[in-house]
Amino acid sequence: MTAERPAAGPSLDPDIAARLTHDANGLVAAVVQDAVDSRVLMVGWMDDEALRRTLEEGRVSFWSRSRQEYWRKGDTSGHVQFVRSVALDCDGDTLLVRVDQVGPACHRGTETCFVGGELPATVLSRAERRSHTDPSEPPNPKEDTAR
Amino acid sequence: MTAERPAAGPSLDPDIAARLTHDANGLVAAVVQDAVDSRVLMVGWMDDEALRRTLEEGRVSFWSRSRQEYWRKGDTSGHVQFVRSVALDCDGDTLLVRVDQVGPACHRGTETCFVGGELPATVLSRAERRSHTDPSEPPNPKEDTAR
Repeated sequence: MTAERPAAGPSLDPDIAARLTHDANGLVAAVVQDAVDSRVLMVGWMDDEALRRTLEEGRVSFWSRSRQEYWRKGDTSGHVQFVRSVALDCDGDTLLVRVDQVGPACHRGTETCFVGGELPATVLSRAERRSHTDPSEPPNPKEDTAR
Repeated sequence: MTAERPAAGPSLDPDIAARLTHDANGLVAAVVQDAVDSRVLMVGWMDDEALRRTLEEGRVSFWSRSRQEYWRKGDTSGHVQFVRSVALDCDGDTLLVRVDQVGPACHRGTETCFVGGELPATVLSRAERRSHTDPSEPPNPKEDTAR
């Protein structure tokens, strides 16, 4: 883990770098998804160098915004993320990284970072949904059996 | 769609708002996942008001950083996202929104925003991986049959 990138080190393929839309801090969001069961495990942040390391090493590296340094997932915890695939989204500001996860993904010891974070949300019934996709049909409460 | 939030309108439950870690622009990332097949469809951004609308209306709303306005997915395209669940991650800066997606999620007409964005990535073999999780065992090339 190196806090600053060596001036003369390898750099990200310029064709890939040109496709990225960085935020004000030079970062893109990286959604990490379990390649086996497709659960979303966590979201981290990558600059060009973290992405280069991830693509070349076969293990996921991030840029830590709080510590302002690179970190390779699992180096401290042993909970390594092995890369299966990496894809960039249509506007270039988000990566989807599919991984084989070793151990729990979350530093709290839970399998994902979203465990325990459920928020109360309205789930529309089938009848209620119909009025959103076909405005000519108002909701019919009698059909509401599948909320 | 309202560009500015009404001063006297409803607001997000303060207990939920207190759990959010906003970025410099008052936003959190929202990963949208298909509830049926678990594909990651897209990533958008929400402020407190977009989250309130999402939780209350049963449809996903975002804050558009480029247009600086709220947008409810599907109002223009018809490609509505019906909420199935919403969860906040362990550090409060990312939401996972599971949805029933109507039509393609991406404005390009593809099912997800990551279609066509695959980047070349190293995938380590089983033998190579072993040396990352058990340093006492160096990689054995003979075992490398499952790349």
